[in-house]
Amino acid sequence: MTEDLIERLQLARSPGIGPVTYRQLMSRFGGAAAALAAIPDLAARGGGRAPKLYSRGDAEREIGRVEALGARFLVLGQGLYPRLLAELDDAPPLLIAKGAIALLDKLCVAIVGARNASAAACRFARGLAHDLGPNGIVVVSGLARGIDSAAHDGALDSGTIGVVAGGIDVFYPPENEARQEALFERGLVIAEMPPGTEPRARHFPYRNRIIAGLSVGTIVVEAAPRSGSLITARLSAEAGREVMAVPGSPLDPRAQGCNQLIRDGATLIQNAADVLEAVGPTQRHVASPQSGYEGEPQWLDGDEDALGLVEGLLGPSPVPVDEIIRLSGVPSGAVQMVLLELDLAGRLDRHAGGKVSLKPA
Amino acid sequence: MTEDLIERLQLARSPGIGPVTYRQLMSRFGGAAAALAAIPDLAARGGGRAPKLYSRGDAEREIGRVEALGARFLVLGQGLYPRLLAELDDAPPLLIAKGAIALLDKLCVAIVGARNASAAACRFARGLAHDLGPNGIVVVSGLARGIDSAAHDGALDSGTIGVVAGGIDVFYPPENEARQEALFERGLVIAEMPPGTEPRARHFPYRNRIIAGLSVGTIVVEAAPRSGSLITARLSAEAGREVMAVPGSPLDPRAQGCNQLIRDGATLIQNAADVLEAVGPTQRHVASPQSGYEGEPQWLDGDEDALGLVEGLLGPSPVPVDEIIRLSGVPSGAVQMVLLELDLAGRLDRHAGGKVSLKPA
Repeated sequence: MTEDLIERLQLARSPGIGPVTYRQLMSRFGGAAAALAAIPDLAARGGGRAPKLYSRGDAEREIGRVEALGARFLVLGQGLYPRLLAELDDAPPLLIAKGAIALLDKLCVAIVGARNASAAACRFARGLAHDLGPNGIVVVSGLARGIDSAAHDGALDSGTIGVVAGGIDVFYPPENEARQEALFERGLVIAEMPPGTEPRARHFPYRNRIIAGLSVGTIVVEAAPRSGSLITARLSAEAGREVMAVPGSPLDPRAQGCNQLIRDGATLIQNAADVLEAVGPTQRHVASPQSGYEGEPQWLDGDEDALGLVEGLLGPSPVPVDEIIRLSGVPSGAVQMVLLELDLAGRLDRHAGGKVSLKPA
Repeated sequence: MTEDLIERLQLARSPGIGPVTYRQLMSRFGGAAAALAAIPDLAARGGGRAPKLYSRGDAEREIGRVEALGARFLVLGQGLYPRLLAELDDAPPLLIAKGAIALLDKLCVAIVGARNASAAACRFARGLAHDLGPNGIVVVSGLARGIDSAAHDGALDSGTIGVVAGGIDVFYPPENEARQEALFERGLVIAEMPPGTEPRARHFPYRNRIIAGLSVGTIVVEAAPRSGSLITARLSAEAGREVMAVPGSPLDPRAQGCNQLIRDGATLIQNAADVLEAVGPTQRHVASPQSGYEGEPQWLDGDEDALGLVEGLLGPSPVPVDEIIRLSGVPSGAVQMVLLELDLAGRLDRHAGGKVSLKPA
């Protein structure tokens, strides 16, 4: 149990410190210990009370529990952490993994879809996953009912990674316990939340960003409009990855989501060869450099003038950070520092697309 | 019965004079009478015997028969001939039409597909055709079994054009007699071949070019790989028109052709709104100028040098005319004239993509 891991876990699990704030603190202070020490002062400058940090004792107990489960931590910016996932702005600071860690070093493709998919679609997903394995592709999915389960089953012999929304030792849905156990033994299971966490609705989008982030591309097989699978597809597109979809008859309502994805530019997928054609030439798993905190832009310390200028531009409506920088005339690094201070003071809300707003007083 | 129509019909029906040759002769000689008079001399220069022309008597009898059937001729380059169709290099010199001619002046969209299509696909085609009508779109198809019949039925109240491969008075398949009669009464039927012609395999690609040529876009609903519907789609793309396809499950073999079309760039169609989005903004039926022989490039008379040069570059393998022009150094107009002479002498074969070859001696 290393000191660094304990401190990173304390920082990552402290309330109000999300993945973006975590990354900014690590970038600004160079390490978890320094970031933890600086938080009270930063929060005071932001005009609020410092968050109650995750205690050293809690962190030590969690690490012990993970080890007792036969699982291990993967640390953002360090050795085994998956490279493509590290490219996300909101990459998880820490992952908990149980199983064949080596699968993370292979080309990953996600297969996701409806929990209540048709039998034909499940059969297609299982066959597609099965056909991708011999081509060196690891199949990533979410260990949910329907398409996810079929994809894991098809790729169990060749390599598959299940990302769960709750703790690594929680089986959801309960009937997937045997499948998750099989992935512990023959595949890999990944969780962002602490052991014992029961998954809640808000956890699923976080889980979906990990599925998209691990993968060079995401294949959607049957998805209702406004479903989680389409969120995964959107996150995949936003991360610059390939979005692929399996078409269906317009007379089948379950095909609407995928057909619309194709109209919006997703690649139509009929078989494994189509997938290989779409993701083969990019070779992102090889070409992508190890991403971490190295080479991040230098942070400037915030000053009182910057704080006042930036705070004056913020209100209850989300605005892009870029706009704050432009309108304030304050250097980007100093704006980020002010936002970090406001964030730690519990006065900032961060929104999708890099927008921020002030919490109502 | 005008003198001009008789002469054009003689020229168009003479053996060895296809639509491309017809257009070139009309362009070179300014009229059918002059072209007919020049043919023996041109064929002699090309080194062959002049084709036996369609006689004046035959032409008069055909015109009488068309009139007796309640049908009429449409003449390329003249008033009622459909404008979009006239844009094709191989536009039919003459069409025979029976029914509501005014439909040709509206925005036409083709719906084509498999003769042995699934019941679901036929239902979809009928519904789509029905929904396009109120949006001012006339549905064009081929009066075949399956998708074609469903498309005509769906659009019968709002406007539909059937293009037949044989004569306008021939019912093929026989069970479509009532449907074709309904189109005589409430829609429009178009034929390129003389009355009484039984359709043969080679007639169907000619028919397909008319379907594609009349329409701002072609929608394919269920088509087997290498089917006639895919030929229509290709002809549509080559004419710069919109290609649209209705997707299906990869598990359904009948969806393969359409799914592949979409992978190749066709617009995925789920409903009438998708069609309107694809063909609406182009407004080709309004913007396209009346096309005819006016403004064609001036033809140069061939000379012996050009004949020798061009003939020397030709062989049994098809080569692009552009390449002949480039390699020979002979002006384009003179090369076309030599090719015309060889064609009329029965020594030239014309191939897809503007390629030509010498017939084996």
